[in-house]
Amino acid sequence: MRDWSTRYSQQAARMHLTVVSGPSYPKQGAEFISLRSGAPPAECIPRAWLERGMERAWACTQDLFGYQSAMGAWDLRALVAERMYALGCRDVDARNIMLLSGAQQGIDFLARLFINPGDAVALEDPVYPGALQTFDLCAPHYLPIPIRAGGLDLDALEAVLGHEQPKFLYIVPTFQNPTGTTMPLAHRKRLIALARARDLVIIEDDPYSALRYAGADVPPLRALDSDVVYLGTFSKTIAPGIRVGWMVMPEALRDKLYAMKEAADINSDRVMQQAVYEMMQTGFFPDHLDRIRAVYAERRAAMLDALYEYMPPDVTWTEPEGGFFVWLTLPTDMDVADVLVRGNERGVGIVPGTGCTANPGSQSNSLRLSFCAQPPDIITEGIRRLADAIRDPRV
Amino acid sequence: MRDWSTRYSQQAARMHLTVVSGPSYPKQGAEFISLRSGAPPAECIPRAWLERGMERAWACTQDLFGYQSAMGAWDLRALVAERMYALGCRDVDARNIMLLSGAQQGIDFLARLFINPGDAVALEDPVYPGALQTFDLCAPHYLPIPIRAGGLDLDALEAVLGHEQPKFLYIVPTFQNPTGTTMPLAHRKRLIALARARDLVIIEDDPYSALRYAGADVPPLRALDSDVVYLGTFSKTIAPGIRVGWMVMPEALRDKLYAMKEAADINSDRVMQQAVYEMMQTGFFPDHLDRIRAVYAERRAAMLDALYEYMPPDVTWTEPEGGFFVWLTLPTDMDVADVLVRGNERGVGIVPGTGCTANPGSQSNSLRLSFCAQPPDIITEGIRRLADAIRDPRV
Repeated sequence: MRDWSTRYSQQAARMHLTVVSGPSYPKQGAEFISLRSGAPPAECIPRAWLERGMERAWACTQDLFGYQSAMGAWDLRALVAERMYALGCRDVDARNIMLLSGAQQGIDFLARLFINPGDAVALEDPVYPGALQTFDLCAPHYLPIPIRAGGLDLDALEAVLGHEQPKFLYIVPTFQNPTGTTMPLAHRKRLIALARARDLVIIEDDPYSALRYAGADVPPLRALDSDVVYLGTFSKTIAPGIRVGWMVMPEALRDKLYAMKEAADINSDRVMQQAVYEMMQTGFFPDHLDRIRAVYAERRAAMLDALYEYMPPDVTWTEPEGGFFVWLTLPTDMDVADVLVRGNERGVGIVPGTGCTANPGSQSNSLRLSFCAQPPDIITEGIRRLADAIRDPRV
Repeated sequence: MRDWSTRYSQQAARMHLTVVSGPSYPKQGAEFISLRSGAPPAECIPRAWLERGMERAWACTQDLFGYQSAMGAWDLRALVAERMYALGCRDVDARNIMLLSGAQQGIDFLARLFINPGDAVALEDPVYPGALQTFDLCAPHYLPIPIRAGGLDLDALEAVLGHEQPKFLYIVPTFQNPTGTTMPLAHRKRLIALARARDLVIIEDDPYSALRYAGADVPPLRALDSDVVYLGTFSKTIAPGIRVGWMVMPEALRDKLYAMKEAADINSDRVMQQAVYEMMQTGFFPDHLDRIRAVYAERRAAMLDALYEYMPPDVTWTEPEGGFFVWLTLPTDMDVADVLVRGNERGVGIVPGTGCTANPGSQSNSLRLSFCAQPPDIITEGIRRLADAIRDPRV
């Protein structure tokens, strides 16, 4: 039996699962309520429209079956450019849009484009665990910047930039994963001014902004500065399983990222790109968004109502205006590892904050709740169980 | 205008196009004959069966739309395990098969799993340019081993292993890209014995073995040793545009590669995986293979006949028993760069050998011809033009 581990690269030692993917969670019975998933539930997937899009794709005259441009299908890139324009990004050229196998792939490519081992990278604390999983492969020196009620703590960022030169800032400014917070426009303008003054590259990951249930839209950072590298996806608005995301890049990065995409997987599934383009051409999307926003809004309300009803007074949480997540903060002396265990015993699953940070030892009293994947009454029961788990260490 | 290049990683400097993807080729008119493409032509794509498979996928009861196991759809993995068994790999467990966005993605993952900058990697000379593109990102020290009529020169490999310890050998033993050569069974057995004696990891890339037009099947290296890491794909037998490939891995690598796949793109397109599974269930595949083998066999014969008819006597070439490629060797004093230019002027496109090697300065008088993508009469005309280009420097 060969010992493979002796041949691994240094990078291999950094290949690890995330707190969300980890198989350490116990097998769950039908009664178990998971508030962990960041995936749209079946009732919010426009399956019939996707099927219709695929039917139309078969009828199209384009070559869907050979190798393609690493940038992806032109028609879908042009459609994404129109959507970016509608978001306030008035100078996006479809030539600088690359279709990806989900936005996650863009995180991987950008990490490889910029990070040498030991390079500084600024990111949110808490942060999307999947970004951490990918950045880890490149062994950066992390600069975790706290998330506050108004999103990223810009004073903290500015202080860090006084003595560090990160390769980039990775940020989810709208309905952040995992906190649900959104950076107000004034803060965005200050961030962009800061980035320009300090020559800071911004990578904006924006999977959730189409899913707003309260408040007014805020433009993406990319709308304020065309040097922002933007990652978008249909994973939350259509389906994760189709793996269609995109990157809007400054033109200067295109040749490198084209070669990176070729080296990684040549190009993404062309048939599915056409199916997404065709389904969007049917005009179903605005109504679909309205419908799923109504579903998620009801679930969000159920979660917030249940939190008010059941949680002890020394527990606090965010009240997101969109997206999928609520961030809950326990009393400082309470360990989320214990709450995770007690929650599992009581039949409710959460994501512990400790898996959502590049700052070892932090987030030990915080956790992520997702309201996207369960109906309101199940959410209410889940929160009731969680409150029990928090209140009483004994089952 | 920001200068992005100052922030790039060292890896970014190694992101480059291949000799096949390079945009340096001139725009081609309708009269131009490209003998460059390694992609199946439209007439060999089972479009109607793929459409039927997709229709059946919509009717299946599985969840195609959420995030999935990074390993891919179980049904298709089980089907691939059966196909591996039919190839003589009697101990393949579907649990150790990962579905990929094409075999290219497996090359990327394995490079990242094993290679530190400066690590030795053994590979064929000439070699598949896409592998070189991907390995380059990890900055290995290449050990190019010559390809002879019987495939890899095992004496040369053995000599190199006397003083080098490569992390792995990357090899396309059947209908090699770019030479079309196939390693006979006796050589395969010797390679496996050598690998065991020297503790050499073998990565076997096997895109073409289903496409044999002459001679008898030879089992893959994986059938001779279960430690061989095997890459397979439906790109050549169904279509490249669907991006469905697979890796058969030793169980010891599974956890690392699972995490690698999650970090790279979470999972591949689940809908397409189901469509491929469903189309395979229709039983169309054996007849389809017979049909496309007949098409390619005729094209191969047309190319070999034309080479005999038109080429000067000091030009030699391989006679592949399968796959897509013929490798042509010019007189040693002739520069393939000139032949490329003269061929383009005469309306025929080839892949110069200089883009297919990790050995700088070598392959300057060799080139790759593909017979898969053009009908016989066009191939004949293309070879006639190429022979003219080789014979006469003046247009």
